[in-house]
Amino acid sequence: MAPLYLALLHFPVYDKNGQVVTTAVTNMDIHDIARVGRTYGLRRFYVVTPVQALRELAARIIAHWETGYGAAYNRTRKEALEIVALTEDLERTIVDVEHNAGTAPLLLVTSARTRRPTLTYPALRRMLREGERPLLLLFGTGWGLTEEVIGRADHRLPAITGMGTYNHLSVRAAAAIILDRICGAHEDEEAST
Amino acid sequence: MAPLYLALLHFPVYDKNGQVVTTAVTNMDIHDIARVGRTYGLRRFYVVTPVQALRELAARIIAHWETGYGAAYNRTRKEALEIVALTEDLERTIVDVEHNAGTAPLLLVTSARTRRPTLTYPALRRMLREGERPLLLLFGTGWGLTEEVIGRADHRLPAITGMGTYNHLSVRAAAAIILDRICGAHEDEEAST
Repeated sequence: MAPLYLALLHFPVYDKNGQVVTTAVTNMDIHDIARVGRTYGLRRFYVVTPVQALRELAARIIAHWETGYGAAYNRTRKEALEIVALTEDLERTIVDVEHNAGTAPLLLVTSARTRRPTLTYPALRRMLREGERPLLLLFGTGWGLTEEVIGRADHRLPAITGMGTYNHLSVRAAAAIILDRICGAHEDEEAST
Repeated sequence: MAPLYLALLHFPVYDKNGQVVTTAVTNMDIHDIARVGRTYGLRRFYVVTPVQALRELAARIIAHWETGYGAAYNRTRKEALEIVALTEDLERTIVDVEHNAGTAPLLLVTSARTRRPTLTYPALRRMLREGERPLLLLFGTGWGLTEEVIGRADHRLPAITGMGTYNHLSVRAAAAIILDRICGAHEDEEAST
């Protein structure tokens, strides 16, 4: 089984006008993705931002739930936030995965704009189940990862689409859906009546 | 194709101690689930609360994005929020679906606590594709739908599980995952290289 990691990049990402920006770290992203990540067996969930003050803010939020009042109030939140790590940029995130897993990860990108995917979800499920090379899933906040980051990836996953052409999901929803597609227990859905 | 509806109940739901409570309506739930719902072709997404002040607050948030400043600032948010409807309780939600679709809906519940599901996700995909009877998916905020609501449902869907025993997802993440399982375009995932 390949170890799976996820990184949420707050830079470099696009804003709605296609400018490269740094977005703010949001509490809800950290909590929601940590809970999804814990459910689906992520080794680590990296919150990546070059802004030191925002890394410190995120660290304080996490400490509240890990060791502060929240740890006793809500134990499941503590378990989720244990997988969160704070890093400065993609480079240092890759290095951290390499230290943690012993090998450099394959970089996988997902984007609502993906035109030409190089990997299907079933193929990635197999890669996870049968492989050993660590996998690092990259998500972008704002209006998504820059072309430069997408260009660096080893694989591009298909965009999530539903019934029509609308696919403006929150990054929280996209991460939930994609982790379920990759790691969810889909096969053993026997109904008992 | 059966028309699909989703209702997010803020009452009656459990709190962490198993007490039946009314939870607050949160802005993030409305936005995230509306965007997921719009992506996967929901006819309507009901925000259900007995508290009139919270329905009014939700209406003001929606108006901001539908006709206020937000409508010009972010057109995709407007499209998503168009599917949101505000109702007082489950009864009136069912009546609204019946008015909208012409037939009373089948009630489907999802819960992290589901022990004995009566329907698999593939079976529900077929029901949606081949059926005509409207389907109303019920989600609970807080620590989930009460046993009374679960007991009223026509079908119980399997709990979402990942790699282990942890399944404390946010209702936003659970709704995203379940709509993707039911309505996502999973078959046509051909990779081009």
